Amino acid sequence: MTGRRGLDRRSFLQGGAAALGGAALALGGRELVEAAGGPVPGGGATAGGAPGAPTAPDDAVGRATEGFRGTRQAGVATPPQASAAFVALDLAGDVDRAALVRLMRIWTDDIERLTSGRAPLADTEAELAAVPARLTVTVGFGPAALAAAGVDEASVSWPAALPPFGIDRLEDRWSGGDLVLQVCADDPLTVAHAVRLLAKDARSFAEVRWVQRGFRRAVGTTPSGTTMRNLMGQVDGTANPHLDVDANLIWREDGSTSMVVRRIAMNLDTWDELDRDGREKAVGRRLDTGAPLTGGTEHDEVDLEAEDEHGLTVVAPFAHVRRARTDDRAQRFLRRGYNYDDAPSGGAVSDSGLVFVTFQADVEAQLVPVQRRLDELDLLNEWTTPVGSAVFWVPPGAGSGEILGQSVLGG
Amino acid sequence: MTGRRGLDRRSFLQGGAAALGGAALALGGRELVEAAGGPVPGGGATAGGAPGAPTAPDDAVGRATEGFRGTRQAGVATPPQASAAFVALDLAGDVDRAALVRLMRIWTDDIERLTSGRAPLADTEAELAAVPARLTVTVGFGPAALAAAGVDEASVSWPAALPPFGIDRLEDRWSGGDLVLQVCADDPLTVAHAVRLLAKDARSFAEVRWVQRGFRRAVGTTPSGTTMRNLMGQVDGTANPHLDVDANLIWREDGSTSMVVRRIAMNLDTWDELDRDGREKAVGRRLDTGAPLTGGTEHDEVDLEAEDEHGLTVVAPFAHVRRARTDDRAQRFLRRGYNYDDAPSGGAVSDSGLVFVTFQADVEAQLVPVQRRLDELDLLNEWTTPVGSAVFWVPPGAGSGEILGQSVLGG
Ligand code: HEM
Ligand code: HEM
Repeated sequence: MTGRRGLDRRSFLQGGAAALGGAALALGGRELVEAAGGPVPGGGATAGGAPGAPTAPDDAVGRATEGFRGTRQAGVATPPQASAAFVALDLAGDVDRAALVRLMRIWTDDIERLTSGRAPLADTEAELAAVPARLTVTVGFGPAALAAAGVDEASVSWPAALPPFGIDRLEDRWSGGDLVLQVCADDPLTVAHAVRLLAKDARSFAEVRWVQRGFRRAVGTTPSGTTMRNLMGQVDGTANPHLDVDANLIWREDGSTSMVVRRIAMNLDTWDELDRDGREKAVGRRLDTGAPLTGGTEHDEVDLEAEDEHGLTVVAPFAHVRRARTDDRAQRFLRRGYNYDDAPSGGAVSDSGLVFVTFQADVEAQLVPVQRRLDELDLLNEWTTPVGSAVFWVPPGAGSGEILGQSVLGG
Repeated sequence: MTGRRGLDRRSFLQGGAAALGGAALALGGRELVEAAGGPVPGGGATAGGAPGAPTAPDDAVGRATEGFRGTRQAGVATPPQASAAFVALDLAGDVDRAALVRLMRIWTDDIERLTSGRAPLADTEAELAAVPARLTVTVGFGPAALAAAGVDEASVSWPAALPPFGIDRLEDRWSGGDLVLQVCADDPLTVAHAVRLLAKDARSFAEVRWVQRGFRRAVGTTPSGTTMRNLMGQVDGTANPHLDVDANLIWREDGSTSMVVRRIAMNLDTWDELDRDGREKAVGRRLDTGAPLTGGTEHDEVDLEAEDEHGLTVVAPFAHVRRARTDDRAQRFLRRGYNYDDAPSGGAVSDSGLVFVTFQADVEAQLVPVQRRLDELDLLNEWTTPVGSAVFWVPPGAGSGEILGQSVLGG
């Protein structure tokens, strides 16, 4: 490898797997697959590994995979990967149930291969498929896809769209869609490749309606378990249900769930005019650690009753966390969003925001009441504007031999 | 940390630095800075490290820094980071030499802080600055900035723009610019934050003209020293000058250089219709390994004379590498481009290409002859279209106490 670079960041990282001893490992539910060529010759063996210790591949992040087959789709409970793309598609007019079955057969096979680091049959850039990097692809059905499948919405307890809210400034180009692909991986090229392959393979069935790309911190840049930060600088994602205890909030019994994608623009110019105190009060949490303004550390409970020396509640009545949190634990949902930061236009400094993504067993019962409360009153509304919105039914995972959507499509 | 996740990918990686024994290290020219809070408590100490060995930070990728002060700007010889943004700005009409000095004073200070993981004074999202992730910011001057500085182009041996080429389909929205920022880091949030901070601080001097974002494989996803792949699936960047031997090709004596940014769209739909053999012949290299079609491995020389059994040269007369390479070693330049993959419109499957970026001491003498040859004849032109073009003079690095552009601006 490039001798002139000497020890570089990758060889620096590569000792981690050493003590686990090899290139093919199962680890915390994730597998590391051996790349086609087998273990990489230890270019970094000289770099930092304990002398004599077996050398780990310095491409461990790339080799890691998430399982595909199962009763629930991957990409929901999966610890969020660093890169994401959300792709909504519109079905061609003539797509009926049989055509949808054909598309799902193709996608199911594509996704199974891509997520394991193997190129799908129609992949003309097969080399780009060799780095799975924990790729997951989560497929969702919009109203038209369900209609084509002959399913009525009530039977999946899933609304075609959220009700309108006063804060909404929705644009068509970020809203709706007959199908959605949530494509997440720890590598942006892996995401780009999977998106193109899947959109290409859908070409005779559906057209791309919108694509929203998102990101979180890259792997290895913050300590393990760090909650993401959004572009307002906030720690974002602290109070999320625990997937093991609260599985019934996320999934229905059959393994299906629903996914809401809201594109929320941030007005960072006015946000930045606010002083630090004001920014912390808008949310009710500290900017540095994400801890509640009432004290403790990030994961401690917010004390909504605590008062300051003037007898005012420390967490303001309009603070985002007061308005968003609920005593009714049945109203909680999983937030799994990504930052977006697109090229600004018209002399603006930036075009930034959140691809706000939630998963919940029941949109009406869980998400809508909270969004309604925030619509009525939430300081954060001053600096944020929903510009896109879409709701999808996420079918159960594909068991062995099944296609995605099997429960409604047969297959 | 999230115990429920068990061993995760970050703790998996974190043994690498262990043998190097600490949180503050100097390593191959790169430093790892201690985060504000000092060494991270070893959340992953239990994960994979050799028992008893000191535990490395699992955020080593985030802590790594590239130096800022010196006779040459960083971001040229720097091994390419995973994420990039190229930001062109237009100067306000009233920006004279004194105003440009003020802007460079602000930017120099901002960049010095950001690249070392410290928040600039005006940074309202200070927490986002804490992860330098090898951030570099390279500043370039377009024609209007040089004019404002009172420099005539000849004295910097730098053309205002490339000559027009037959293949060009240039769009204003991707071309030109009075100033450029090349912002690269191994983390996309670090890039987004730096871009916004620098654009904000320039607000009273200049307006954003265009932003082009790019990416390569994330750190840890491919073995150390792997050449990047572009979205055509090709190994891209093999035949680049060696920076130590060929420094005079890249830099002028004073440490300045020039930067060309060409946005080159790929027509992947027609490219994908070509068979594998045709795709390899278009370039003259193999898709799997990047090796020349005349044999050997990636970094072996292409044999342009070699013939096949029909007496035809193995590397076709129109192949990209035959047309691009040169016996005149003085015509070489450094290619340091990034993939782009933006949201497609109008029902297209993708909007992909290359932010093709080069550095060279002399644009006219090095880049232009090669681009002219490719314009005349290059099979790759069938599937690629330049849609943007800009040329910038890259001033020398800022020495201690100096500002960027010191040599032309005084300070
Ligand atoms: C750009 C828009 C938004 C931003 C920047 C934002 C930011 C935040 C932040 C910083 C927190 C505190 C840390 C945490 O627990 O994650 C939070 C909590 C929360 N947010 Fe948002 N949020 C946004 C939109 C929304 C929307 C649209 C909803 C629901 C419809 C929502 C629901 C919640 C919930 C349920 C919590 C947890 C409250 C608790 O139980 O403590 N947020 N948000
Ligand atoms: C989207 C457009 C382009 C693509 C996809 C592309 C792709 C490639 C590939 C795959 C190689 C072989 C591997 C390597 O040495 O990097 C290569 C080599 C090269 N390309 Fe390009 N290229 C593009 C545009 C350009 C342009 C515009 C120029 C110059 C103006 C250029 C100059 C070169 C040079 C000098 C080499 C090395 C030739 C040698 O010495 O072997 N390329 N390019």
